[in-house]
Amino acid sequence: MPDAATLPESQQILALNAFDARQAGGLPPATAELVQRRQQTFGPTSVLFYQEPMHVVSAEGVWMTTADGRRYLDVYNNVPSVGHCHPRVVEAIARQAATLNTHTRYLYDIIHTYAERLLATYPAGLDKVTFTCTGSESNDLALRIAAAATGRRGIVVTDNAYHGNTLAVTEVSPSSMPGKPLPPHVRVVRAPDVYHAPTDDLGQRFAAELQEAIDSLEESGFGFAAFLADTIFSSDGIYADPVGFLKPAIDAVHRAGGLFIADEVQPGFGRTGDAMWGFLRHGVLPDIVTMGKPMGNGFPMGGVVSRSELLEAFTESVGYFNTFGGNPVAAAAGLAVLDVIRDEQLAENAAAVGRHLRAGLRGLAGNGHPEIGDVRGAGLYVGVEFVRDPLTRQPAPELATRVINGLHRKQILIGAAGRHGNVLKIRPPLVFSKDNADQLVGALGEVLEEVAAPSR
Amino acid sequence: MPDAATLPESQQILALNAFDARQAGGLPPATAELVQRRQQTFGPTSVLFYQEPMHVVSAEGVWMTTADGRRYLDVYNNVPSVGHCHPRVVEAIARQAATLNTHTRYLYDIIHTYAERLLATYPAGLDKVTFTCTGSESNDLALRIAAAATGRRGIVVTDNAYHGNTLAVTEVSPSSMPGKPLPPHVRVVRAPDVYHAPTDDLGQRFAAELQEAIDSLEESGFGFAAFLADTIFSSDGIYADPVGFLKPAIDAVHRAGGLFIADEVQPGFGRTGDAMWGFLRHGVLPDIVTMGKPMGNGFPMGGVVSRSELLEAFTESVGYFNTFGGNPVAAAAGLAVLDVIRDEQLAENAAAVGRHLRAGLRGLAGNGHPEIGDVRGAGLYVGVEFVRDPLTRQPAPELATRVINGLHRKQILIGAAGRHGNVLKIRPPLVFSKDNADQLVGALGEVLEEVAAPSR
Repeated sequence: MPDAATLPESQQILALNAFDARQAGGLPPATAELVQRRQQTFGPTSVLFYQEPMHVVSAEGVWMTTADGRRYLDVYNNVPSVGHCHPRVVEAIARQAATLNTHTRYLYDIIHTYAERLLATYPAGLDKVTFTCTGSESNDLALRIAAAATGRRGIVVTDNAYHGNTLAVTEVSPSSMPGKPLPPHVRVVRAPDVYHAPTDDLGQRFAAELQEAIDSLEESGFGFAAFLADTIFSSDGIYADPVGFLKPAIDAVHRAGGLFIADEVQPGFGRTGDAMWGFLRHGVLPDIVTMGKPMGNGFPMGGVVSRSELLEAFTESVGYFNTFGGNPVAAAAGLAVLDVIRDEQLAENAAAVGRHLRAGLRGLAGNGHPEIGDVRGAGLYVGVEFVRDPLTRQPAPELATRVINGLHRKQILIGAAGRHGNVLKIRPPLVFSKDNADQLVGALGEVLEEVAAPSR
Repeated sequence: MPDAATLPESQQILALNAFDARQAGGLPPATAELVQRRQQTFGPTSVLFYQEPMHVVSAEGVWMTTADGRRYLDVYNNVPSVGHCHPRVVEAIARQAATLNTHTRYLYDIIHTYAERLLATYPAGLDKVTFTCTGSESNDLALRIAAAATGRRGIVVTDNAYHGNTLAVTEVSPSSMPGKPLPPHVRVVRAPDVYHAPTDDLGQRFAAELQEAIDSLEESGFGFAAFLADTIFSSDGIYADPVGFLKPAIDAVHRAGGLFIADEVQPGFGRTGDAMWGFLRHGVLPDIVTMGKPMGNGFPMGGVVSRSELLEAFTESVGYFNTFGGNPVAAAAGLAVLDVIRDEQLAENAAAVGRHLRAGLRGLAGNGHPEIGDVRGAGLYVGVEFVRDPLTRQPAPELATRVINGLHRKQILIGAAGRHGNVLKIRPPLVFSKDNADQLVGALGEVLEEVAAPSR
């Protein structure tokens, strides 16, 4: 198995619990056959989860079922955000696909209704939406809007950020190119980590470091176009608190004449519990917001929310059209997602269950598990950081790997995040209940009893 | 209305029949209200077709229905390639969306079955597929694969090519930046146009011009990575013949150690009639093939087909994962599309109806319509070039605009292509029948009687 630290982020974290074909002996015959068929068609870009890859057959709510009839608690998947195969979303897709599915060069009621409903969740000023198909396309478009609006190209991101997979977006995703030099128009700031680097005033520190990056870009000739950040800092290791710490940084961005692009692919659509959008928790106003993964509960869709004048500068320079973006089926799926979030009070559920979960995890930490160095997050985006020693706080990625595999044996699906891959990443479908949270905490305690000893 | 020639391609052609809000008086109240709602949410990037925009409500086969109950013959839309709302595709999407819809880090039968079925339509050697969500994502990924495999960045495209909307792909889409300098790593060759620039040996001429572009890239320091071409040259103006003219050019690409990327977003999936893929008509073997629009009959999906060794170079450098790409619902939609193309013999239909249609159009041209300068294409990708004079062959975009609007009044939807926007672009759903073709030819004759006189 390759050394995780030398792999791109998309595979770095994966390597911690990725299938290794060289150790494929002993797989059940049906699984081995599927693995072989997959390797013949997908080739080397394709990475599977787990040393014994999961052969899934169906999913519902927070549960995924495999071919052998086992049911797994899904604590990993944030795309099926309102629950796997939610019947209201499925019905909306099926009905609309049977009626009309075309691009947006014609008028069609549901696409306009969806645009209005979506924009109504945003603060005043963010009043225009451009639909895309993925979060990557959304961030790619946001970079172009920012360049056209500012006349500058320089971008600042956090130092283990991930923003997507197009060429332009990969250039602003340091986690996708570990050990490689950043492109000349990109600068990084340290993630807002108060666990490894304590401070009494994270807001001022983060703003000061961002200002240094801005100054560097201005000196470079590229100029400063935008600060692009995932407001829950998921790839960096999940940093949510203190609420409002982003405010001084965004003030610095605007003082420098730059734009703040809030990447809401991870925190958006109610996941952080406190609000529909991660930036709202911080009391800041982005200039551009990008959306993806949970927007259609699995239907491929994304979007960029912005202001008219920013779009005008871009449209004059080049224009944009996305064939599938905002098509009627996407609109139907997206509208059903908004309805379910509202009717099932999923943001409120995320807040309540998230609090309950973090309390349970902290209880576990305090009850003989010093390897849990930190429990943090907002709503149902929770990080559990494993360390070798609570005093040195040295990261323990090997323990995270053992926990991921141990939880898999207990039929719980989970992943890791952070520069070192030592932070358990808890981001289940938002229909996750307190019972589900208790099951996770109980199983984690059992797994730690089994696997944590060697690292103490 | 802006001067079409100064607009980006995505809007250049559109401007010929785009809605102009400044002339919105007189719209039916319900349409006017929808237009207003749309402008409030979509803003300036959004362009509508037609001075009286169409308020659509449903579609089936080759027919689209508007809110006033009118039925339009769709000669424009190539995304619903097997017919609008084809019941087999709708049923496949509905069933799979209700069962499981997740990313491809798990094993799941239908995604592997689809990958196998799709690759079986390709010649030997093109044996690996990477799924994306759009043609733009496919071309963006193809550029990255080519750069990693060759260690070079230079790209050659045709001079009015369109390959998509990401930042990197826009840089290789000259039609998206008319009048602007090309990026330094991009060279263009003239479109293979034997109507305006006759030659006895298009293959040799095209290859020689491509070689000049390759030489220029090699001298520039960027080196030559790939020739990227839509094998029906749709944005350039639709150039299909003589069959095989691409062969000497692709030989030159390979002699120079570069790759040929065939963009099959437009010609692929049987549209050209003679074959499943446009490159097969020419007897050439691409190194990378990109797919998009018709792949899922409207379900957002795309893909890149390539060889293992090319993917390996890319994977070692950065890796790739696309969250929605190749998900089970996309696979179900894609599989249904392949089934329908086979069971309804749609490639054969495209060949037969395309021949019938071109014969009808040529009959019209020879029967007192010298403004039809050329009729060309393959299968159901047909171009009708309007000229002011059959001898000078001066383009007549204003006539194309009048024809598009005249056909709209006769309830036929059609668009234009080419550098001058004077080429009617005929690319209906592949279930288009000879009767549909006769209706189009008859209506075109009537419209030309009404509108062509002023330009004679």
